[in-house]
Amino acid sequence: MATHKLLLLPGDGIGPEVMAQVEKIVGWFRKRGLGFETETDLVGGSAYDAHGKAISEEAMGRAQAADAVLFGAVGGPKWDGVPYDVRPEAGLLRLRKDLGLFANLRPAICYPALADASSLKREIVEGLDIVIVRELTGGVYFGEPKELVTLENGQQRAVDTQVYTSGEIERIARVAFDLARKRRNKVSSSEKMNVMKTGVLWRQVVSRVGKAEYADVELEHVLADNCAMQLVRNPKQFDVIVTDNLFGDILSDIAAMLTGSLGMLPSASLGMEDPATGRRKALYEPVHGSAPDIAGKGLANPIAMIGSFGMALRYSFGLVEEADRLEKAIANVLASGLRTKDIAAPGTNAVGTKDMGEAIVREL
Amino acid sequence: MATHKLLLLPGDGIGPEVMAQVEKIVGWFRKRGLGFETETDLVGGSAYDAHGKAISEEAMGRAQAADAVLFGAVGGPKWDGVPYDVRPEAGLLRLRKDLGLFANLRPAICYPALADASSLKREIVEGLDIVIVRELTGGVYFGEPKELVTLENGQQRAVDTQVYTSGEIERIARVAFDLARKRRNKVSSSEKMNVMKTGVLWRQVVSRVGKAEYADVELEHVLADNCAMQLVRNPKQFDVIVTDNLFGDILSDIAAMLTGSLGMLPSASLGMEDPATGRRKALYEPVHGSAPDIAGKGLANPIAMIGSFGMALRYSFGLVEEADRLEKAIANVLASGLRTKDIAAPGTNAVGTKDMGEAIVREL
Ligand SMILES: CC(C)[C@H](C(=O)O)[C@@H](O)C(=O)O
Ligand SMILES: CC(C)[C@H](C(=O)O)[C@@H](O)C(=O)O
Repeated sequence: MATHKLLLLPGDGIGPEVMAQVEKIVGWFRKRGLGFETETDLVGGSAYDAHGKAISEEAMGRAQAADAVLFGAVGGPKWDGVPYDVRPEAGLLRLRKDLGLFANLRPAICYPALADASSLKREIVEGLDIVIVRELTGGVYFGEPKELVTLENGQQRAVDTQVYTSGEIERIARVAFDLARKRRNKVSSSEKMNVMKTGVLWRQVVSRVGKAEYADVELEHVLADNCAMQLVRNPKQFDVIVTDNLFGDILSDIAAMLTGSLGMLPSASLGMEDPATGRRKALYEPVHGSAPDIAGKGLANPIAMIGSFGMALRYSFGLVEEADRLEKAIANVLASGLRTKDIAAPGTNAVGTKDMGEAIVREL
Repeated sequence: MATHKLLLLPGDGIGPEVMAQVEKIVGWFRKRGLGFETETDLVGGSAYDAHGKAISEEAMGRAQAADAVLFGAVGGPKWDGVPYDVRPEAGLLRLRKDLGLFANLRPAICYPALADASSLKREIVEGLDIVIVRELTGGVYFGEPKELVTLENGQQRAVDTQVYTSGEIERIARVAFDLARKRRNKVSSSEKMNVMKTGVLWRQVVSRVGKAEYADVELEHVLADNCAMQLVRNPKQFDVIVTDNLFGDILSDIAAMLTGSLGMLPSASLGMEDPATGRRKALYEPVHGSAPDIAGKGLANPIAMIGSFGMALRYSFGLVEEADRLEKAIANVLASGLRTKDIAAPGTNAVGTKDMGEAIVREL
């Protein structure tokens, strides 16, 4: 029996609560004979409190050794004042960079049963099913110089640098095109080539890869400001959107918010495939954040976190039937009317994190 | 009688059509004794076609000498292949930079009569009235290095640089706080201080200015990705949003799209006040772009362009009564049911650019 090594990093805020539900799901699959081994470690503010940094070397070593990392969420007002280099987000950014997780896949799906939770009109979002493919290890997140200095005249000056090479753009473009082939065969590439040189290069490279290797996939280019607008105006025009780290951060959050059910959306961050083993490093996390306002109250929706484990089953372990089974269970529980607070219609009853998690286990 | 020197730069696409309507409005005010002198010049693709660059030195000289510039829109597929330095947008960017127009004010107002044109639910956007204050002469738009090079290994590498000094942030923060005082007294400052040093500095400086000079104004900080989300979820929580050049580009486009009436929204770009004369350089332009798909068809909505002239009356010439009168005329024409295609309810009749412009003149 194959052993799948999972590292659980619940993090801060609602992270531990939603991760606890995933552990029940993992337990269920284990009982059915699947070889999951789990370890748990700290990340974010909780790691800072314990070790003075946002992730320990030991945890990084475990992440490198794991077949997949499940990540909850990091951050909260408690750590607003900590130094920049050890702020909670630094733990997540280091995981992305050191594991080489360059491809972030963020599906935005609007469940018909939940369409009314959206601030958009039902007809605009009902049936929405798009994926944002965000470049995750380059761009302004990691470019140097990145500094804040005091000048001789007493003024302060801050600098961030956005850098992209053609190689970085090629590999993320391929992820987007490959994905589009399994979907509705359309890629929308987004940048600001009218003001940014990285945008000029982005458009050139994506066009070149598209023409040379994916002539069967429709490709369009959309400026990032216009893309944000079009997501609000008519999101169903898109299938796969591919974009850089910073635009991807914003565009994927817009896409998520359109669905009206942020607590429902998982994401996957993938590294390069090892040509020898065919395996790739991977981290799975919900799109929602640490939600400090509801943390510890048992109110959080665990579905995004559980769905992230579903993505791990599919992408890291090739357990397609099991992933389908888990997704089906989630859909059935929703169809039965069970709702956490974030997706409950005003005035109806909502269940807590634990009840939702256990209902999904029962449904399995 | 004071003479007000206006430079009209209609630009490309629908720019000339909507500017033609403004000329009628200017003519009407001139007949009533106001001293408007107008000149017209080329910018964008049309300037490139005539002079090989996106704005001529002569036009720049006229812009420097004008009391206010009215700008239409630039760009279109015709110029997609022109070299980066002379692309249509370069004309607009040079105007912003050389005139020192650091403060871009973009109101997003949802007219109750038009609320149904929004893709958002009526209750989410009806009565929306927010302003995005966007820093316009700094950040990644103008920072150096900005380059695209071929490396020795054959790879290409592009770099953009985001730079902000504390002085640049202070002055835009003051614009936002001053504006909020005349409105609902709340400023939301947006950046990505969790990944960008310019974001760290932005938050520090805005906080400092707020505490020291505007303790009476409520100040909150919202990460840019969250701000994009919140604009979609519940835009009425905001009053004035202040943000950098790049985030401002995206967030103001989202805000504009929420209203459902992009063709309605004007904007103002203002320079520093000259301490001696009390005057400031200014450029007024609609938020919508050149809309090449409908250019030349007489379908464009001229209200954003006419409203931009209204902002010029108010901010550049202190003609408050005249500005009120123009805005009232626009509101009355809308209340009478007249609609261009972009704001017409499906199935109802729409009028063209010229009819809308003339109806507003008649209403004056
Ligand atoms: C937590 C933060 C550093 C992160 C980002 O900006 O990438 C988050 O917003 C995300 O989208 O995963
Ligand atoms: C035309 C383009 C350069 C410009 C910008 O990016 O600033 C436009 O999108 C805007 O918002 O005015």
